[in-house]
Amino acid sequence: MSDQASVGMCGVTAARGFRAAAVRAGIKPSRKRDDLVLVVSDNSSAVAATFTTNPVRAACVDLDRRHLAGGKARAIVVNAGNANACTGPQGIADAQRMAELASAALNIPVAEVFVCQTGTIGIPMPMACVEAAFPALVARLDRNHGAAAAEGILTTDLVRKTVTGKLDVAGHTITLGGMAKGSGMIAPNMATMLAFFTTDAAVAPAALQRALGDAVEQSFNRILVDGDESTNDTVLLLANGASGAPELDERHSDWPRFTALLRKLTLDLALQIVRDGEGATKFVAITVEGAASAADARLAARAVACSPLCKTSWFGCDPNWGRVIAAVGYSGAALDPCRIEIDFDNVAAVRDGQPAVGLTLTALERVFKQKDFTITIRLHHGSAGAYTVYTCDLSAQYVAINAEYMT
Amino acid sequence: MSDQASVGMCGVTAARGFRAAAVRAGIKPSRKRDDLVLVVSDNSSAVAATFTTNPVRAACVDLDRRHLAGGKARAIVVNAGNANACTGPQGIADAQRMAELASAALNIPVAEVFVCQTGTIGIPMPMACVEAAFPALVARLDRNHGAAAAEGILTTDLVRKTVTGKLDVAGHTITLGGMAKGSGMIAPNMATMLAFFTTDAAVAPAALQRALGDAVEQSFNRILVDGDESTNDTVLLLANGASGAPELDERHSDWPRFTALLRKLTLDLALQIVRDGEGATKFVAITVEGAASAADARLAARAVACSPLCKTSWFGCDPNWGRVIAAVGYSGAALDPCRIEIDFDNVAAVRDGQPAVGLTLTALERVFKQKDFTITIRLHHGSAGAYTVYTCDLSAQYVAINAEYMT
Repeated sequence: MSDQASVGMCGVTAARGFRAAAVRAGIKPSRKRDDLVLVVSDNSSAVAATFTTNPVRAACVDLDRRHLAGGKARAIVVNAGNANACTGPQGIADAQRMAELASAALNIPVAEVFVCQTGTIGIPMPMACVEAAFPALVARLDRNHGAAAAEGILTTDLVRKTVTGKLDVAGHTITLGGMAKGSGMIAPNMATMLAFFTTDAAVAPAALQRALGDAVEQSFNRILVDGDESTNDTVLLLANGASGAPELDERHSDWPRFTALLRKLTLDLALQIVRDGEGATKFVAITVEGAASAADARLAARAVACSPLCKTSWFGCDPNWGRVIAAVGYSGAALDPCRIEIDFDNVAAVRDGQPAVGLTLTALERVFKQKDFTITIRLHHGSAGAYTVYTCDLSAQYVAINAEYMT
Repeated sequence: MSDQASVGMCGVTAARGFRAAAVRAGIKPSRKRDDLVLVVSDNSSAVAATFTTNPVRAACVDLDRRHLAGGKARAIVVNAGNANACTGPQGIADAQRMAELASAALNIPVAEVFVCQTGTIGIPMPMACVEAAFPALVARLDRNHGAAAAEGILTTDLVRKTVTGKLDVAGHTITLGGMAKGSGMIAPNMATMLAFFTTDAAVAPAALQRALGDAVEQSFNRILVDGDESTNDTVLLLANGASGAPELDERHSDWPRFTALLRKLTLDLALQIVRDGEGATKFVAITVEGAASAADARLAARAVACSPLCKTSWFGCDPNWGRVIAAVGYSGAALDPCRIEIDFDNVAAVRDGQPAVGLTLTALERVFKQKDFTITIRLHHGSAGAYTVYTCDLSAQYVAINAEYMT
């Protein structure tokens, strides 16, 4: 499902009626690539969104929350290199000004412009750069610039992240596409990075918001690179109806297929973020079964995914299952240590809280030496459904990247 | 207060009536130093203890909890190289057997022997090594082997950790000494490593337990290396009365001085653990003031201390205060982002949630380049007292140490 199209009509411009542009405004002088992105819907579009739950949040998040109340979107302005968080009244004014720039250039209501920002916290926005670059940005709007837009929003990411999917609704082909950025400061608590989806489906706004909330809960909220929750996380979904297909909501027979596609694409983009986690060399899916509650399953999975000791052992291919069971233990989830089972892929490592009969370190090492593996933890303590968190290892490269980010 | 005595009568043998011994039993073949330690009180001693709150805990922790109910101790057996955690019924039998070995060799009740173990989780104890080494261990008991005992309990620690303090009680000099091990899997939740204190004071058992609980809450419970809580954490305090001083409890006029000394020495040992944190290059004290509750202050301080992004920025001397305020934000503590203040040492970095007037990165960099610095976070959201957590940075060396621990 990953969108490997080398042509630019991908990601947020895969669906009809959407155009995008990216320019280098010079927002962070050390950054040598595009950093200002514009996504435009040719007509007024229904919009759904989820935001970071961190109370220390960027000015643009507050602006977007207000604009979301109107339920309509025409444009998204995104910059990389500056988070515009902890920037006080000037930051609020700057976010507002970015929306006004798009409003004036495109002749659309300010309330239909969404602003997303990512980068260093606490540095005033260099608005002169943004103002100077805006005319070129608008002039570059094109349906072929979806890939360029996906490049322009990246920070420490190594690879561009886009997805595209199609669906037939009442004889009309609808397209759903998306792009995301995110590599560090990734922790599952509502949204955890920037992601943008566009579709030419027509979708009732309330249904669109419910569908996005469900999809985010099962995708972006279940990935974790380092346990640090960002100040700027935002997922936006615009549905402009340009496909000509009838409006979808929960009562439409195609609704389950639309929401299934949305869940599939949000999970795809979320997993692209984990695989591109800062310094990541391994991708690990941690599933907890048999917890007393969904909250307990989440606690246990998240404790393992956050544990520096577990993450470094994966990096070193060191089959140290003891660190996994210790993390499950201190997670706060209700459990009986003597009933815990742990598998690494299909290798039974722990049964009844102790090493499984016949366990060999050689068999475990074979699993740990892979690029991808799964950890399945069965608590046998209740009937909560399986809960999976997707994460990566903690490498020396993560430390190197984050020891010199600001300066 | 750190005990730099090169002679061995330090740490747990500084107080009268205590002897210690260490031998190399070969518990973990790759370990090339002493790994089996015995500490003995010449007479029956009052005992207090705190243990890990992790429900996934070692067999020896359960044994010690039972023995603590008797309120008396004569001996402590400690091994490094094997945690005897997640080892099932055999692990329980092995812990019991270690207590029996000391009981038989010293002719003391089994219930007055405490067993502490540290090392790899989930590997059966090589009891043949322990049995074979025990006679030599007992033969080596000597008041001059306090330093050797402090060496023998170390795992990834780089330095020996001991403390000694003295106090005059009614004309009698009482001595309080201690030793600890701990470098990784350090997180503040009750006790968080192994630490052993001995005193020749006579102390009423119930008062001793209360004093130790208070001291641990303000020392070992406030240090954090990596946020991973161990399966084996134990702090033991033995008071054998060999000083001849009258028995102390809360009603004695010298009680405040005794508990102050205990608090001072527990904090000293706890900070020695942080300074020797795995791969640590910096020591950082994080204080939260003005929280709505003590629990909120702890949440906020701990979030910063656990944050991989904060810890790597300290390692890199990257003055990234935005990561600190972001961590405070997602900590779960009640707060108003617009009132947060943050100082690094005496440099005002954040006022009213934004960069302080006149803040320069140069001034912040000077702080970050030091080996030790403080972070003070004022929430202005309530009247809870200041809460301090002591932590270290996250270096590439931490990753290297923990990528190859088991194999």
